[in-house]
Amino acid sequence: MIFIGERINTGFKDVKAAVENKDADVIKKWAVKQTEAGATYLDVNLGAVSSKPEDLCWMIEQVQAASDLPISIDTNKSVMLKEAVPLCKKPPLINSTTAVDEKMEAMFSIVGLAMDEAGSPKTADKRVENAGKLLAKAMEFGINPEQLFLDPIVMPLKYMQEQAQEILSGARQFRLFSDPPPHIVCGLSNIANGTTQKKLINRTFAVMLVANGLDAVICDVTDEDLVNALLTAELVMNKQIYADSYIEAFRS
Amino acid sequence: MIFIGERINTGFKDVKAAVENKDADVIKKWAVKQTEAGATYLDVNLGAVSSKPEDLCWMIEQVQAASDLPISIDTNKSVMLKEAVPLCKKPPLINSTTAVDEKMEAMFSIVGLAMDEAGSPKTADKRVENAGKLLAKAMEFGINPEQLFLDPIVMPLKYMQEQAQEILSGARQFRLFSDPPPHIVCGLSNIANGTTQKKLINRTFAVMLVANGLDAVICDVTDEDLVNALLTAELVMNKQIYADSYIEAFRS
Repeated sequence: MIFIGERINTGFKDVKAAVENKDADVIKKWAVKQTEAGATYLDVNLGAVSSKPEDLCWMIEQVQAASDLPISIDTNKSVMLKEAVPLCKKPPLINSTTAVDEKMEAMFSIVGLAMDEAGSPKTADKRVENAGKLLAKAMEFGINPEQLFLDPIVMPLKYMQEQAQEILSGARQFRLFSDPPPHIVCGLSNIANGTTQKKLINRTFAVMLVANGLDAVICDVTDEDLVNALLTAELVMNKQIYADSYIEAFRS
Repeated sequence: MIFIGERINTGFKDVKAAVENKDADVIKKWAVKQTEAGATYLDVNLGAVSSKPEDLCWMIEQVQAASDLPISIDTNKSVMLKEAVPLCKKPPLINSTTAVDEKMEAMFSIVGLAMDEAGSPKTADKRVENAGKLLAKAMEFGINPEQLFLDPIVMPLKYMQEQAQEILSGARQFRLFSDPPPHIVCGLSNIANGTTQKKLINRTFAVMLVANGLDAVICDVTDEDLVNALLTAELVMNKQIYADSYIEAFRS
């Protein structure tokens, strides 16, 4: 499982304040916490707090001062990417690209969202259509499937309950595009938006996604129950060899 | 989700001792506990402790003295069933029938195991073949798919890790046999045999099975985390309408 730590995102109040006040400690604290929890990448998301590339660059610099993990740059604005990518000490993951063509130029490992100009897909079929276009376009640009992370677009269970199965079904079909298949990733927390059982819903849905081919996830890596559930789901999928100490082995 | 409480089984030491000593209180205690936890059926399993039908009948009588729930009679011995079935105040579920023909006569709601004379299946295909035979035979005897609970046969993750995916894939294909489909059920706890993380593995695998069509389970219904995970998985599958209070609603 490729764990992409979601926490350095101005959608969280403490990170928003940290960016506004250039308080490096908050950013560094989350970089260290998520690294210790077992993250593979650290997502960095400036959100709507600022449109200045230097603010995103500042965030990336703080993360890299506290952790050796590669960065997931969470923007699809090329003006941001032009400044941010060269700063990255390790090859970054570019998160999030839509099916719109011009966004894909000059990117390498990318998260591709199964959306298009029409917005969020409503069916599994539309997700597959969008993801297929994205994969074809990526290959034109010399990006091979192992560098591509396809995101079926998670919708809130509370408000769009019938979408959950479409997401699972879409993800399952993404796996069939190529051999080796592209990665399947999602921004998990959207599933539990507005609910009273966020952690339970997050980890249950995550496990169901693994059963349908998910092998990467943007999530709260400090949620131990979630990580343990995902490690266990990977054992079931025979992606890790069973050992009694499989959880301890991950944490050490 | 159809929850079949597994606890009144002589595989558990306290129940074994209770049957040997005719200690009704232990049986009644588990009948009440599982009823309160939300069970749909109470499984009653005499195991190898005795081959006397009257011992199984005694167990059923104690359960029915403490709970109004229907019984799941966990034996495939017709000599046992002949005595036990007439005792049942509500239509019982007969658990466990194999693909062997003569076992199926005169039964109504049944759990059919996807096994044959050759023993436990090793592949999804063999599971589907066995289950298909069972469904066809059941229909010959006038048992419709809604009365049939197909069990893909769960194997221990620790010792047969590659089996887990075959089980998921088999279950998924059982759903395609008919419309409406047969129920898909399993004896869950076998998946975690010998492991150090029994509850985590049980609930993770259970959720993955729900993603593949499981709608009934023989399990520890007093394990709240397991039940909550299964209720959540059913929301994802759009089988229950989302309400913020979905867990409390189940418990009340």
